[in-house]
Amino acid sequence: MTDGPTILVLGGARSGKSRHAEAIVSALPPPWLYVATAQSFDAEMEERIAIHRARRSSDWQTVEAPIDLSATLKSLPGDRPVLIDCLTVWLSNLVLGEHDVERATDALEDALQRRDAATVLVSSEVGLSIVPDNALARRFRDAQGVLNQRIAEIADRVVLVAAGLPLVLKPQ
Amino acid sequence: MTDGPTILVLGGARSGKSRHAEAIVSALPPPWLYVATAQSFDAEMEERIAIHRARRSSDWQTVEAPIDLSATLKSLPGDRPVLIDCLTVWLSNLVLGEHDVERATDALEDALQRRDAATVLVSSEVGLSIVPDNALARRFRDAQGVLNQRIAEIADRVVLVAAGLPLVLKPQ
Amino acid sequence: MTDGPTILVLGGARSGKSRHAEAIVSALPPPWLYVATAQSFDAEMEERIAIHRARRSSDWQTVEAPIDLSATLKSLPGDRPVLIDCLTVWLSNLVLGEHDVERATDALEDALQRRDAATVLVSSEVGLSIVPDNALARRFRDAQGVLNQRIAEIADRVVLVAAGLPLVLKPQ
Repeated sequence: MTDGPTILVLGGARSGKSRHAEAIVSALPPPWLYVATAQSFDAEMEERIAIHRARRSSDWQTVEAPIDLSATLKSLPGDRPVLIDCLTVWLSNLVLGEHDVERATDALEDALQRRDAATVLVSSEVGLSIVPDNALARRFRDAQGVLNQRIAEIADRVVLVAAGLPLVLKPQ
Repeated sequence: MTDGPTILVLGGARSGKSRHAEAIVSALPPPWLYVATAQSFDAEMEERIAIHRARRSSDWQTVEAPIDLSATLKSLPGDRPVLIDCLTVWLSNLVLGEHDVERATDALEDALQRRDAATVLVSSEVGLSIVPDNALARRFRDAQGVLNQRIAEIADRVVLVAAGLPLVLKPQ
Repeated sequence: MTDGPTILVLGGARSGKSRHAEAIVSALPPPWLYVATAQSFDAEMEERIAIHRARRSSDWQTVEAPIDLSATLKSLPGDRPVLIDCLTVWLSNLVLGEHDVERATDALEDALQRRDAATVLVSSEVGLSIVPDNALARRFRDAQGVLNQRIAEIADRVVLVAAGLPLVLKPQ
């Protein structure tokens, strides 16, 4: 059983989901742990990471976990609030690296349930459009939908952010 | 006037909308009728159909209605709960077959209003992305939006499912 | 400070967002002002504009503002309800014309806060799909997300429309 609540923050691109998730964590006593799943392959990505990082104060300690999210989570002090930003980039890293997504999700659920402090996870909603043309995109949005369902099921609270404002999908 | 409630379950790809709709129907006394609109043209589609079918118990009786949904609905016993999964595939069949969507929607509404037991319809939300490049995709998402609005208007209850969790758009 | 409420109506393509916004304005005493941001470049666009226009009664006075939205807004009588339809087309005009979006948004916020009567703004949610292939589309959906967040922040009320039905994101 989990002691610290698991909170899933869903939203579209530039919906304000990361900012909302940061606000949840930073309402708790510092220091806070920021688990970044992004790897900067190109200038566009690097710029996004820099913008996110510049917004956060020095009370945040950043850890990178592009692939081994559950191991990283288990290695962190269990009594400090953690923000994981985001599951979509993590899933993308898993899919592109041909890792076993189901097994990685099992391990993530297990790691989340061992934590004593709050864990806030950010993830994208990517399935509200017409069917994508290419097969990889279809496979990815299916995997993202399944992952979001699985984390939502074990989460204590789930919100969907649109235009910076949260809609409660699962109240705590 | 309808006696049995009409319930519309909206959601994105892999949002858990079918599972949610099945849960609504299977909370009622069996047997239940499952109206499948999908036709298996390829291996990907066949796999999806098989997964959905394997999840359902033997209390479900399956009827296929890729095009003539209203006629199928009228031929079924009006006092048994029906799940229609899904309107998006049905609409796709209509558009690709160059059928008259407006007339088919009129007939569907009429058939829904004659039912004595609950009818749960699953449909996709496909309009929350940038404008698609190709004209057919734009036409399809417009038709889907109009269809969802029309069914939502006559429905007694409408929910939007995200990550397996329902948001109530129209309470019963 | 604003006296008349600013109401933001978000939604996907063919979600019924314009109709919902019109219903809000037309519940107030006429005459009403309709600020159209669309320019008709092709037959598809012209048809859409004609459909929207045909739905509105003669109590509506239409003003076109494809680019200079804040100036138009300031030139209108401040005590009459205004519907701006829509921010997505306006943003698209700004981006394609290489205007300064941030400065235009500052000016829009300022104009909104000077109004004495209600102002209802329609805008699209475009970020709930997989990452688009082309860079302009990615840039546009980022800009749309940021714009929606900014207007939502100063708005007195924000709703998300799906299948013609509103979900309240920010109650007045």
